[in-house]
Amino acid sequence: MKKIINDPNQVVSDMLVGMEAVSPEVCYDREGEVIYRRKKIEKVGIVSGGGSGHEPAHAGYVGTGMLDAAVAGNVFASPDPARILKGIERADSGQGVLLVVKNYSGDIMNFEMAADLAAELDIPVRSVIVRDDVAVRESTYSTGRRGIAGTVLVHKIAGAKAEAGGTLEEVAELAQRAADNVRSFGVSLSGCTLPGVGTPGFSIGEGQMELGMGIHGEPGIEQTEMKSAAEIAEIMVEKITEDLDYSGAETAVVVNGLGGTPLMELYILAGEIDRLIRAKHITPVKYLVGNFMTSLEMSGASMSMLRLDEEMKDCLKLPCNTMAWKEG
Amino acid sequence: MKKIINDPNQVVSDMLVGMEAVSPEVCYDREGEVIYRRKKIEKVGIVSGGGSGHEPAHAGYVGTGMLDAAVAGNVFASPDPARILKGIERADSGQGVLLVVKNYSGDIMNFEMAADLAAELDIPVRSVIVRDDVAVRESTYSTGRRGIAGTVLVHKIAGAKAEAGGTLEEVAELAQRAADNVRSFGVSLSGCTLPGVGTPGFSIGEGQMELGMGIHGEPGIEQTEMKSAAEIAEIMVEKITEDLDYSGAETAVVVNGLGGTPLMELYILAGEIDRLIRAKHITPVKYLVGNFMTSLEMSGASMSMLRLDEEMKDCLKLPCNTMAWKEG
Repeated sequence: MKKIINDPNQVVSDMLVGMEAVSPEVCYDREGEVIYRRKKIEKVGIVSGGGSGHEPAHAGYVGTGMLDAAVAGNVFASPDPARILKGIERADSGQGVLLVVKNYSGDIMNFEMAADLAAELDIPVRSVIVRDDVAVRESTYSTGRRGIAGTVLVHKIAGAKAEAGGTLEEVAELAQRAADNVRSFGVSLSGCTLPGVGTPGFSIGEGQMELGMGIHGEPGIEQTEMKSAAEIAEIMVEKITEDLDYSGAETAVVVNGLGGTPLMELYILAGEIDRLIRAKHITPVKYLVGNFMTSLEMSGASMSMLRLDEEMKDCLKLPCNTMAWKEG
Repeated sequence: MKKIINDPNQVVSDMLVGMEAVSPEVCYDREGEVIYRRKKIEKVGIVSGGGSGHEPAHAGYVGTGMLDAAVAGNVFASPDPARILKGIERADSGQGVLLVVKNYSGDIMNFEMAADLAAELDIPVRSVIVRDDVAVRESTYSTGRRGIAGTVLVHKIAGAKAEAGGTLEEVAELAQRAADNVRSFGVSLSGCTLPGVGTPGFSIGEGQMELGMGIHGEPGIEQTEMKSAAEIAEIMVEKITEDLDYSGAETAVVVNGLGGTPLMELYILAGEIDRLIRAKHITPVKYLVGNFMTSLEMSGASMSMLRLDEEMKDCLKLPCNTMAWKEG
């Protein structure tokens, strides 16, 4: 294992120290392993989080117009309810808090317990569960579909609505609509190594790739011979558009790297995706290309596509200022 | 070789097609392999470029407040003078053009020839050469120090000055001052594979790293056993501050990934760098953490630090809107 780290058991706190040091927008609550917005605003709070190793998710999305707090678990492990409660308390300004949760059993259980603890403190909490990954119906760590990079679009839309003064009810309703209208599909070319373990959890053979592998290395649909960017784009677009009717729609598209994939390849893939979706009369009005929800140094990529309505489209355009996503 | 590409000989044009598709700010001139700003503004033009494989450099920096055109060579190969001339013509609005060139022999020669060709067309051209890498005095592809990720800071400052209406003389003078005041140092943990070659150009043994390796895999100072983030940060900060007096200075710092390094590791490294430079009474006022000048999927990182004066500080804060760097 070659990683630029100190103690393998301290990677999460060392990373959050670094995030606090370099971003004027955020503070690090060391007790809760929470990155929160430095300047508290009177508005509905937005909280997300989950296991670490998916950077910039989720702490990279804390700041103006997106999240108010992100709660970090250990690498690929859900944060416990006490930490999530800290995040909720950091985000609460008296108008309630929305939790955006990726659909993994540990996260669902812990965020639910934290919501119950918050209720005891008279903090109104609503939750939206993101289940965007169309690859598999059930998976190692989830009942039902997994939540992956499409979650970032839900953060943006919920964050913009809250920043614009929406009530908890309104923000939760819009976030749910975003979650209902986003689909994702990913491919992996390699495994990844957890810092505390030191050897790869699994590997993918030379000349092979896996379709639909999860962001923790959970099994996908199949291993197959390595395909071209055009072929990969076609699989992604087919899987996603089979699952939801995007015809005639305006969309936001994320072409996401899993951590170890060069930007050159992501742009090549994005060009192929753009060609294919336009041929289907889908109009992408916003692209994100880069590393938005990763799996340590895993090689591979995912596509997410959100079917927009006018309100979501407006929210996408509103300003945000976070480490990983800025809009002017 | 596992890469998300189509034809290995078409990776550059396929990538530029993708960039044009996803970024409303830019267009792709297929004849010149040039990405240029869609909306031409009456101002001094800024042009950069060089070999591909360093994405987002340089096309990712084309847009409001940074570059007007970026010229792409083949992977790790300088673009020819005719292409650079296309870039200059795209960027020229009658007020002249500044070329920002990384110090590699091929780039120096080709950008100089292109400047001569532009002079024949009565386009006034000035050049600034960036030589920020303190690791080695001479290298495989350079006479004198190499230009690496510090170049991105020169783009930002020159771009802001031009956007604010500076004359060619003023923009060139400020860009030169930025180039004179930035230093960088990098470490590599792995080699990388050129798409047209298919096997890694070199490798770095298990448990080993190379100090000062170049962004094309050129030799650095030494191979050594793998070090911790704190030790790597200390080497970077020492090498950089030995070379330029930063005492009491305000600085801009880039913690740059080489393509295959997870963001988690870059933030851990950034936290260590921040601690060390503050102990030296250096005040970082701006951080960039992420992939800004890469070497395909190479694993490793570099640190760049620019000693700011008031004018540079103001320019850093001005808005920019590019694929890889946005300021609000």
